[in-house]
Amino acid sequence: MSRVFNFSAGPAMLPQSVLEKAQSELLDWQASGMSIMEMSHRGKEFMSVAEKAEADLRSLMNIPDDYAVLFLQGGASSQFAMVPMNLLRGKSSADYINTGAWSKKAIAEAKRFCEVNIAASSEDKKFTYAPAQDSWQLNKDAAYVHYTPNETIGGVEFHGVPETADVPLVADMSSTILSRPIDVSKFGVIYAGAQKNIGPAGLTLAIVRKDLIGQTIAGTPSMFDYKTHADSDSMANTPPTYAWYLAGLVFEWLKEQGGLEGMAAINQRKAEKLYAVIDSSDFYANPVQKDCRSLMNVPFTLANADLDKTFLEEALKASLKTLKGHRSVGGMRASIYNAMPEAGVDALVEFMQDFERRHG
Amino acid sequence: MSRVFNFSAGPAMLPQSVLEKAQSELLDWQASGMSIMEMSHRGKEFMSVAEKAEADLRSLMNIPDDYAVLFLQGGASSQFAMVPMNLLRGKSSADYINTGAWSKKAIAEAKRFCEVNIAASSEDKKFTYAPAQDSWQLNKDAAYVHYTPNETIGGVEFHGVPETADVPLVADMSSTILSRPIDVSKFGVIYAGAQKNIGPAGLTLAIVRKDLIGQTIAGTPSMFDYKTHADSDSMANTPPTYAWYLAGLVFEWLKEQGGLEGMAAINQRKAEKLYAVIDSSDFYANPVQKDCRSLMNVPFTLANADLDKTFLEEALKASLKTLKGHRSVGGMRASIYNAMPEAGVDALVEFMQDFERRHG
Repeated sequence: MSRVFNFSAGPAMLPQSVLEKAQSELLDWQASGMSIMEMSHRGKEFMSVAEKAEADLRSLMNIPDDYAVLFLQGGASSQFAMVPMNLLRGKSSADYINTGAWSKKAIAEAKRFCEVNIAASSEDKKFTYAPAQDSWQLNKDAAYVHYTPNETIGGVEFHGVPETADVPLVADMSSTILSRPIDVSKFGVIYAGAQKNIGPAGLTLAIVRKDLIGQTIAGTPSMFDYKTHADSDSMANTPPTYAWYLAGLVFEWLKEQGGLEGMAAINQRKAEKLYAVIDSSDFYANPVQKDCRSLMNVPFTLANADLDKTFLEEALKASLKTLKGHRSVGGMRASIYNAMPEAGVDALVEFMQDFERRHG
Repeated sequence: MSRVFNFSAGPAMLPQSVLEKAQSELLDWQASGMSIMEMSHRGKEFMSVAEKAEADLRSLMNIPDDYAVLFLQGGASSQFAMVPMNLLRGKSSADYINTGAWSKKAIAEAKRFCEVNIAASSEDKKFTYAPAQDSWQLNKDAAYVHYTPNETIGGVEFHGVPETADVPLVADMSSTILSRPIDVSKFGVIYAGAQKNIGPAGLTLAIVRKDLIGQTIAGTPSMFDYKTHADSDSMANTPPTYAWYLAGLVFEWLKEQGGLEGMAAINQRKAEKLYAVIDSSDFYANPVQKDCRSLMNVPFTLANADLDKTFLEEALKASLKTLKGHRSVGGMRASIYNAMPEAGVDALVEFMQDFERRHG
């Protein structure tokens, strides 16, 4: 089979040129006689790869010097614990915004370590919107405010960054990082699992304001202490070297796309095309409030759910894969992260229009 | 440059046939139109890869059904905390055997969670031997006994499995797992970072007797609870899918080598050749007590340390890489894990003999 358009919510597509480069140097990286996977993480070859990846990421996201960039393992699910363990700093509670499945997981884990104040929630409307900031009931003594800028399952996105004054803002950006420019200086911690917009699964990025590092709660494992990693340039133990290398290739590719400004324009265009075909028809529907729609994850339903199976079968024949919606939402979901080519969205749009003509 | 013989202590060489297979299917795994890296971990394609890898590992190591096999992240360094967090089960102390740098790290981390009784130590002789079991001062009320069957830095290996009666035995097998058959039923927990004998960095295996699962101490992050992973077939969150796949390819390769019996015979032969050239000369020396020498990591010194630099430079020209010893031991270290071909050891032996002739 030739390459397909894979709309998986994550792990998700990687840029083809990144995969081709990785393939070409898989057994012999730059005449070293070794695969990246076989290299000591402390050798000069891998160190150069690691340093360039961090430098490129800092440049792409314009990360200020007073932030540590950590290349970690364990996924966002580990960050759900690392955030309270590192950021409580003697305080007893934290504010959380509940906008869906991933917020809920972060909240459940935080409750093991502190009192959680749900400062806002969109559960009243089945997580189909992002609560406006003027509705948030923030606690000014909270250790931090945690939110999920993009909910992968619900397909809901915050398009602005909340203001939280002196209380550090923490964001699970797993599904939106690198999709457009953001002002890192507004955040205390940004974290993201790699498998959507960064690289392969098994790498987790944490961007942490340095003054927040070093005050973990009692009983924190060393590997869950941001200081352990910040003090060692993420090499306190063997890092996930191959995933780090691939992330570096993705960062180079992003620069070729015009950086995050360039990427944002492409992502905007891709999402608009897909929402346009949904909105222009009674055959398809997206349940999300229009000003909170995700540019990365587009859930949609068919007016006649009996056609779901046929839709998925025919899509597969058209090389459009992994379009089945999450079981909690039903219908379809097209995840269109950075690496989904615009041609993939065009192919999906064309298929959807054709499917409607034949079955509508 | 063509492929070199890389004696790195880890990340370390992978079998060339494994890398070639990974390369050939990097952009399109078995006509799926996707890279393994791009696949949903819950899709049928990756599930088949994951299940086969576990089945092959169970078969290779003859793992009994009452053991869970967990594909985790975070390295052995995370296990240093996970072991006490999961295995204390209401007890207040654990026994540790101190045989070198890695034991010490495990001990330091355990001390955050419990009282540590050093039941035996080889520090009196600079970690150049494995304390015989009749010298161990075990505490019969210990929650578990932890040891490091192979010390990567010192090059010291326990060649038998200790008996600990009803107290669960825990082993950091990062540098010796899969190098020869072991009786898994003698252990409570076996864990290993992947980057020596399993696959690329970023994957950690834990083999856990099921009755030890489910009694974590208060404050354990969900991701540090073996139960979280055992209950979800290691898919509580997105696992390191590509590393898992590569581990599966390594397991297939091990079966082609005659399984662990076949691998053990090759490893024995490789190590004997290298120790023979060291022992037959006054030019080279290995400091480790002969009956405790590692089959995986062979440290050796030159009688004249002024020649170290020349040795490393000339070795590099002969495509023999990463032979510099750990700074705490000095001299050289040849790590000869499973994937180091016998031809690599032969080339090193030949080089060492030639070097001695020219500089001895």
